[in-house]
Amino acid sequence: MDLKARLFDVKQGQNEAVLNSAQAREANIALLDRIQLTANGKSVTAIADHSDKFIKYGEIGLFGEAAEKLKLKTGQKVRVEPAERPHSLDAIRKKLDGNILTAAEINGIIDDLMAERLSSAELAAFVSGVYTRGLSSDETVALTKAMYASGGTLKPHAKIVVSEHSIGGVAGDRTAMLLVPIIASLGICIPKTCSRAISSAAGTADVMEAFCPVALDIKQAQRVVDDVNAFIIWGGAVNLAAADDKLIHIRKPLCLDPKALLLTSILAKKKAEGAEYVLLDLPIGLGAKLENLEQARDLAKDFEALGRMLGMRVQCSITDGSEPLLKTIGPNLEARTVLETLRGGGSSELRDKACVMSGIMLAMLRGVSQDEGTRLARQQLQSGKALQKFLEIVKAQGGNPRVAPGDFKLGKYKQSVASAKGGRIGHVDNRAISRACRAAGAPEDKAAGLVLAVLKGDRVNAGEPLLEVYANDKAKLARAAKIAEEIVSVERVVIDVV
Amino acid sequence: MDLKARLFDVKQGQNEAVLNSAQAREANIALLDRIQLTANGKSVTAIADHSDKFIKYGEIGLFGEAAEKLKLKTGQKVRVEPAERPHSLDAIRKKLDGNILTAAEINGIIDDLMAERLSSAELAAFVSGVYTRGLSSDETVALTKAMYASGGTLKPHAKIVVSEHSIGGVAGDRTAMLLVPIIASLGICIPKTCSRAISSAAGTADVMEAFCPVALDIKQAQRVVDDVNAFIIWGGAVNLAAADDKLIHIRKPLCLDPKALLLTSILAKKKAEGAEYVLLDLPIGLGAKLENLEQARDLAKDFEALGRMLGMRVQCSITDGSEPLLKTIGPNLEARTVLETLRGGGSSELRDKACVMSGIMLAMLRGVSQDEGTRLARQQLQSGKALQKFLEIVKAQGGNPRVAPGDFKLGKYKQSVASAKGGRIGHVDNRAISRACRAAGAPEDKAAGLVLAVLKGDRVNAGEPLLEVYANDKAKLARAAKIAEEIVSVERVVIDVV
Repeated sequence: MDLKARLFDVKQGQNEAVLNSAQAREANIALLDRIQLTANGKSVTAIADHSDKFIKYGEIGLFGEAAEKLKLKTGQKVRVEPAERPHSLDAIRKKLDGNILTAAEINGIIDDLMAERLSSAELAAFVSGVYTRGLSSDETVALTKAMYASGGTLKPHAKIVVSEHSIGGVAGDRTAMLLVPIIASLGICIPKTCSRAISSAAGTADVMEAFCPVALDIKQAQRVVDDVNAFIIWGGAVNLAAADDKLIHIRKPLCLDPKALLLTSILAKKKAEGAEYVLLDLPIGLGAKLENLEQARDLAKDFEALGRMLGMRVQCSITDGSEPLLKTIGPNLEARTVLETLRGGGSSELRDKACVMSGIMLAMLRGVSQDEGTRLARQQLQSGKALQKFLEIVKAQGGNPRVAPGDFKLGKYKQSVASAKGGRIGHVDNRAISRACRAAGAPEDKAAGLVLAVLKGDRVNAGEPLLEVYANDKAKLARAAKIAEEIVSVERVVIDVV
Repeated sequence: MDLKARLFDVKQGQNEAVLNSAQAREANIALLDRIQLTANGKSVTAIADHSDKFIKYGEIGLFGEAAEKLKLKTGQKVRVEPAERPHSLDAIRKKLDGNILTAAEINGIIDDLMAERLSSAELAAFVSGVYTRGLSSDETVALTKAMYASGGTLKPHAKIVVSEHSIGGVAGDRTAMLLVPIIASLGICIPKTCSRAISSAAGTADVMEAFCPVALDIKQAQRVVDDVNAFIIWGGAVNLAAADDKLIHIRKPLCLDPKALLLTSILAKKKAEGAEYVLLDLPIGLGAKLENLEQARDLAKDFEALGRMLGMRVQCSITDGSEPLLKTIGPNLEARTVLETLRGGGSSELRDKACVMSGIMLAMLRGVSQDEGTRLARQQLQSGKALQKFLEIVKAQGGNPRVAPGDFKLGKYKQSVASAKGGRIGHVDNRAISRACRAAGAPEDKAAGLVLAVLKGDRVNAGEPLLEVYANDKAKLARAAKIAEEIVSVERVVIDVV
């Protein structure tokens, strides 16, 4: 049937369309049935909603996503037909039954996912199948290839392209913001897409955004990397391995991180960035994503093997992820420390990690020893060449290259948290830091965050400050300070004397 | 924050609410985040949509389901807060990890499901977990109890309450429409909730609806059963074991029928009907839900065991489900045959199955032999007492007790399908029958359907009719007749002579 379009600028995260209830009943289209909409030579699949009066007989209500894809205007005619059952449902069922999928079946799932032919419930069944049944190495390769084919691809003109990525979980781990300019300042091409915070105080994208725009599309990203041999941008706008972002959305609420999807997710994006050499950081320890060395070594082997099958050389560093890397947490606070560290001051922990990681990468690329690579990296920092490259990147992405540490404002209000007892700092908890900073308004409010006065191993006396919280809102500050009391564990040197 | 409600009568199958994009960004509510809405002393959880202009700053757009639950009027204030992560996500994750859930965890999942705190993706992960990991017998009992506690409960005043149910898949299997009045005419209370067609030509609810209303709510249903000791109504309106209907909706597209959910789904509803004795029909064979006798026997044991743990005596009949039971398929055609059979003519196959099944039930209840029970059932039919009881039920549900077989109209147009060759009928395919009848317009168009001229074992000559299709639309008739060519397989007695 042909219906008259009425458009509503409402985003729902999927294609939905509203039919008049009586007309839907006549056409045998039940609530939540899949329908195919055709207009202007384009077709999309949408989920059917019903309305008794708001949408009249002969009309169809279209929300943001579907209308955009069909390039529709209000009043235009839309052809509406029941959609066929997507074939990939059989493949999803096959995976749930514990069978191995062919590359064609995996491509079918990703094709249907990209064309919005699968509902979020059906995608969740696929993720659950991968989680409970696992993927063979052939399946993993096929899924990774299907994922990087699903989005844009970067084509750096450089001879060698490298990439760095951390699986995350460490507060203040801004290693990439030093490593990228160090490596690029040596004439090596290193595009870097990164994420915004999901549950933490700030993702690399949030911190880089304090310097310059990060939501570049693929054309802009290509221009920047051709120009300055590097970028540090948000992966969400550039649309590399687009299918992966849709699956992450499904996995997030259930915290379902099947190993196979962790592997494919990261390497599909690296492949789409055009990387030939990849350095992955796997932080381990209390509260990190990996509990121990053995888990990290197993995962590293899987990453290396998958990389080899995709034509990339992958090396993994295993680092201590149980404590925050910086004392300053929150978008502006981290931006300030990154800039200070590039200028020669700042955080020695960040400087050390960035130089050692750069050293491992240089050893991979140039056949030098890791120590030699680390020395080379330190030189690039000390000589100011890394800073100069960083400011080039900032400028190329549209930021101000004359930025100074004092430009990054902190929250109007601050509150100190003091130690109830004296002793040695036993643990500084990454997850409590994230919760406190988010309560203070981060990452939306870039000025919110906290400054740790101590790190693990330091000593405090009772009543001395452990940290200071910053916020632009007094109620938020109070809530954040309350949560911040859980961050630092102080161990008495002598627990009791009897 | 408090926002001004704007209502839209759009049904979306879940609670959704639209926030202004800028305001959502300020409040840190991402697209598809869960939010809690409070108004008029009620709270619901909803999924957040975004709008740039359609919904203005300070407003909230609410669709049918959420607005109804909050009893909201346009212009009223609604309190909007980020919703907490539902605890049952941890239990779902635990099931996916292969662990056994406690009764409290299972209750938590069903509570969150009923309160719309779980998205369809999260429910799909639960169903997938049950499918891949299975449920222990304790888990199955807990889930069944949680399901029947999730909806209304019938409280028949009768001393003994019995129930009958088929797991389905057989075209024209209207056994219940004879069995219910046979049993009720003997003074035994037998409430029967049944389903509309999902993929078939007609469900028992669709056929009963040709006689009288079937969408009774629980109060109406209680009144009818108190009045005439029985009813035959649609399960969808009466809201027994409501959680089950929501899970069925998730399972349908993927055809995910984990055995544990088949067990809980059926017995939760029987328990909610107040049944103490349950007879389940398990059809087996080509195209049926169960392939062979062994599968059916295993399932029967599970049903009996679960029934025992719930305080119900469950017996299963295993029947041949590879061929249709009636020659007349489609809502009105089946209604006509049911009435004719109750009047003493009609279908001998339907009469035989209904009397034998009634006999098994009477043997369970009264300690007579099955043969004796079957004889008793035949008497009730032959004496007209079953017909009289059926018409009492029709009248109590609001239909016309003076209905005659000729009152059920058939489609205006008909088309015959002839056999291309002579031979013996080898198979009549239930699934092809369903597809052809739906193409003709059934079950929405009650007059659509088909009449088989032959059943398995009959002989035909080339050119003789195999069946006749009925429809009210010529294009639908043509499509249905084309599909109907696949229904009957004719085997040549002598395949070739050399």
